Amino acid sequence: MRASVKQPADLYPPVIENADASGRIVLVCEHASNLIPPRWGDLGLSPDQRRAHIAWDPGALGLARGLARRLDAVLIHAPVSRLVYDCNRAPDMAGAMPSRSEVHDIPGNAAISAEERLARTQSVYLPFHNAAHGLIVERIARGQRPVIVTIHSFTPVYFGQSRSVEFGVIHDADPSYAKAILAAAQATTNLRVELNAPYSAADDVTHSLRVLATPYGLPNAMLEIRNDLIGSPEAEEAMAEALAPVLNMGLVEIQKQAKAG
Amino acid sequence: MRASVKQPADLYPPVIENADASGRIVLVCEHASNLIPPRWGDLGLSPDQRRAHIAWDPGALGLARGLARRLDAVLIHAPVSRLVYDCNRAPDMAGAMPSRSEVHDIPGNAAISAEERLARTQSVYLPFHNAAHGLIVERIARGQRPVIVTIHSFTPVYFGQSRSVEFGVIHDADPSYAKAILAAAQATTNLRVELNAPYSAADDVTHSLRVLATPYGLPNAMLEIRNDLIGSPEAEEAMAEALAPVLNMGLVEIQKQAKAG
Repeated sequence: MRASVKQPADLYPPVIENADASGRIVLVCEHASNLIPPRWGDLGLSPDQRRAHIAWDPGALGLARGLARRLDAVLIHAPVSRLVYDCNRAPDMAGAMPSRSEVHDIPGNAAISAEERLARTQSVYLPFHNAAHGLIVERIARGQRPVIVTIHSFTPVYFGQSRSVEFGVIHDADPSYAKAILAAAQATTNLRVELNAPYSAADDVTHSLRVLATPYGLPNAMLEIRNDLIGSPEAEEAMAEALAPVLNMGLVEIQKQAKAG
Repeated sequence: MRASVKQPADLYPPVIENADASGRIVLVCEHASNLIPPRWGDLGLSPDQRRAHIAWDPGALGLARGLARRLDAVLIHAPVSRLVYDCNRAPDMAGAMPSRSEVHDIPGNAAISAEERLARTQSVYLPFHNAAHGLIVERIARGQRPVIVTIHSFTPVYFGQSRSVEFGVIHDADPSYAKAILAAAQATTNLRVELNAPYSAADDVTHSLRVLATPYGLPNAMLEIRNDLIGSPEAEEAMAEALAPVLNMGLVEIQKQAKAG
């Protein structure tokens, strides 16, 4: 087997936690880290910008870990900033290596050569999706039926506008699990919860679900939590405590539907 | 990163030919080989059975190679029999490691443990799809727009019934390229050509397209050629000579449609 291109020196494979978990849910956190490896310097950003929501989803990893513990779920998360490569985007999408994010220019992404696009894709995107694919397919081979849940957070103020939604549940082609989560959250939490908000699949934000869940017919949902609600370790834990039963209730509901169908 | 299970000793990665090809088409041949590695003995089959269409798609690899040369296309093919693992099936599909194929029992697949399903998935399916995924995603990162074409052959007599179709063109969610190929074949060949015959996506035969093409919005088609028409190296070459211009004409047509849209 010949490799089609020379492999870059550095690979940034995802981190897998709770690998031997026996729960059905597979938690995916593409925007877990704001780390920019030395190869990419600071991408021309200030320390404040590198800590802001444009570089990662603040609180998402802590929440995902809290959910993983409570749900006995495996968790896979990306080790570098979405500004190096956004693992929830295909390489031809503008958001994969964005030159601008909300109101911020990203100088280090202003003029990316085809060679550099390829290098980042090989360094970050392919290791992430090959590992996620492996996790999921191995569970299918063992006779399980994984349920894919991606964990995100969003900024309370976007382009100067306040967002009132607190918890968004987004689906790709199959809405069943997202709708079941929505109903459970409305019944058991005080969160302002909406379906397909603050974005939807039409905004191309469901790439991971499209690649990892839809081709295998697996139930799936993308969760978006407003990041001011998970701004400390304690708040992350409290949110995990509220959402773990919501995800479980949703699971019970789609299992009931699957039996009835 | 912890591995979720111990890797099996033997991996059977796919073969990649013409890796640096610059054409848009990526040729995929999941049933190229009837090789059964020693670990699986002969699966309880006679030499005749191991040479029959149940073990592979006779003629498909030769045709794919002829197309790869003429289209300047990269080609990826699986190195082991579909009876060990059918790379065009997810691990939970009955056809992935079938205990029966057409009128033949496959004794070595009669009672596969969860552990063995996992081992075959890790040995054959995951290396194939990770490599195919890599090929395709790298091309997207370079600014290309790959077109995925899987190459198959089918038996002229199935369950005792003769099949009159000679060339079947099958699509997944996006029918545009398949329909363009159908029209070009009708215009330029004498083949009895049909859309979604002798199978269709409803029969779960488009797994590779679903995993590799649909999530990336890539044009795609699955080609099925009746194997009595590609029963010798000369016949494979003649078919490649007839079908290469058909695939190119189809490409011109969908490029025209993309511009008009």
